[in-house]
Amino acid sequence: MDKKIILTGDRPTGQLHLGHYVGSLQNRVKLQHEYKQFIMIADVQALTDNAENPEKVRQNVLQVALDYLAVGIDPKISTIFIQSLIPEIAELTIFYLNLVTLARLQRNPTVKDEMKQKGFGSNIPAGFLVYPVSQAADITCFNANLVPVGKDQIPHIEQTAEIVRKFNNVYGHVLVEPQALVPKDENVARLPGTDGKAKMSKSLGNTIYLSDSKDTIYSKIMSMYTDPNHLKVQDPGNIEGNTVFTYLDVFDTNKEYVQELKEHYKRGGLGDVKVKKYLNEVLQNILEPIRIRRQEFEKNPDYVMQILKDSTQVARQEAQKTMQEVRRAMKINYFE
Amino acid sequence: MDKKIILTGDRPTGQLHLGHYVGSLQNRVKLQHEYKQFIMIADVQALTDNAENPEKVRQNVLQVALDYLAVGIDPKISTIFIQSLIPEIAELTIFYLNLVTLARLQRNPTVKDEMKQKGFGSNIPAGFLVYPVSQAADITCFNANLVPVGKDQIPHIEQTAEIVRKFNNVYGHVLVEPQALVPKDENVARLPGTDGKAKMSKSLGNTIYLSDSKDTIYSKIMSMYTDPNHLKVQDPGNIEGNTVFTYLDVFDTNKEYVQELKEHYKRGGLGDVKVKKYLNEVLQNILEPIRIRRQEFEKNPDYVMQILKDSTQVARQEAQKTMQEVRRAMKINYFE
Repeated sequence: MDKKIILTGDRPTGQLHLGHYVGSLQNRVKLQHEYKQFIMIADVQALTDNAENPEKVRQNVLQVALDYLAVGIDPKISTIFIQSLIPEIAELTIFYLNLVTLARLQRNPTVKDEMKQKGFGSNIPAGFLVYPVSQAADITCFNANLVPVGKDQIPHIEQTAEIVRKFNNVYGHVLVEPQALVPKDENVARLPGTDGKAKMSKSLGNTIYLSDSKDTIYSKIMSMYTDPNHLKVQDPGNIEGNTVFTYLDVFDTNKEYVQELKEHYKRGGLGDVKVKKYLNEVLQNILEPIRIRRQEFEKNPDYVMQILKDSTQVARQEAQKTMQEVRRAMKINYFE
Repeated sequence: MDKKIILTGDRPTGQLHLGHYVGSLQNRVKLQHEYKQFIMIADVQALTDNAENPEKVRQNVLQVALDYLAVGIDPKISTIFIQSLIPEIAELTIFYLNLVTLARLQRNPTVKDEMKQKGFGSNIPAGFLVYPVSQAADITCFNANLVPVGKDQIPHIEQTAEIVRKFNNVYGHVLVEPQALVPKDENVARLPGTDGKAKMSKSLGNTIYLSDSKDTIYSKIMSMYTDPNHLKVQDPGNIEGNTVFTYLDVFDTNKEYVQELKEHYKRGGLGDVKVKKYLNEVLQNILEPIRIRRQEFEKNPDYVMQILKDSTQVARQEAQKTMQEVRRAMKINYFE
């Protein structure tokens, strides 16, 4: 039987960080062996709210590709492609827009939240409002069965499924209805920032990048949020919401030792610096090989771009196949 | 100096009629000698509110092409193309959507009117709401300087001009700002229906099609709306809002004779049947050669489709040139 198809990706608006690593990258390195995996560098989507900053998007396409290769995404088995080079996605988006009402778009809870966050109000760019439709095009273009997403992205997958059902109902069964692949462990899905805030994000300045140097990682860990009331080493400390322990839970495979540290911290006598130094060891062990691989690829950006070019070609062929079927179903295949 | 470029076209939702003939077709036959003229069969736009009826759109692509050739649009000098075969239009639309706010789209008076007409309310398909943005893509894709439109379409050209200015401002001067080419004579621009209603339109059933037979034309003229109070031949009649006279004003080149008829009708003694028979002569003279040419082309639909295929190829090349410049300006020309 054919492998199931996965579509995943990132907006190239910044380098990828530890939050991406635990939330998705690590998973993709596993998934690429079980599934046929398409990984999209979503420059078109990035432009929906960065229209006036194309240089930033351009630069980060290479950065994101470097991060992918550094963590072990293998371009021989995963297809990494650049969204803007697949015009079929734009074509599908235009057709899908006819199958979705404005009211339905405005009801999307994730878009609502993001609109609030970004302070758009009714000055929301139309492109931003319709990006869930564009996502439906991304997903269906490659006949993806599964889309790995965080909980907050589930409404988008539901929107896609609705469009698929509507399309198939009107034009005949052509599109594959995708399902969300949601991680079970919410800690893993969304790593808190080094400041303890719910989300690691560039705009909050609480990130550890995959490309960060050894020293930078050390200093970010040293200034990490712990228990604000744990002032003296001998004081009992709180491990709930203590970022250092959250990170240890996520990253340290030696669960027994982490348990010991927690007990010690809770009864007092274990200083933050000591725990942080231990977390530093754990994280450096994970990040060092990634950083070294990244530096190797950084030396040869042309090689990385060639990978993107070749993979995008492969993705394009898939997209063209889908588009041909869509044209046939919509009866706009005039010259076949 | 290069000829200026014109973009024009029709939605393939029905055969073209006398309203199209005086409103645009006749003009295009003239314009094709003065300008580089692109004529778009707008199947993608037709699908925005006919998404569930693709067969109708499909069939009418050929019908509209037949009407074009019948009236004398010369595919050797005008480029007649099918919109859905120019993916660059979809790509541009997606990028332009980022430059337009939802509030701006909702303010478009023509869209507002059409929404009311079609009874969409907030269940307006998103594709319909954004069609002025898609029109901006149509126009700019071919660097059109001029767009012949009726008064009601001016807001769309203004929307396009806004997008062009915004794009050029953000990404550098790439796009050409178009101007509306509005006919001076409103009678000509919008021919009333045979029932006297303001607009000739298939949905109102008040049309005379270019493909109508001699007998059909005769019977449609005979049942045309005149002065409802002009009951007896000897009664004085009203020529204001009297469709038969409006048509004579538009179609009869013998202005002097029309003036005589009007005077006679106003003072009484001239029956509707007599005027209608005269209008019939005038219209048959115009429509007969069109119908005969149309019937010739109807015999060879493959030939007509080949014309569309070749012309669409030419249009596509223009679109690709524009898209290449847009990609460069937006810095998404990764592999140049």
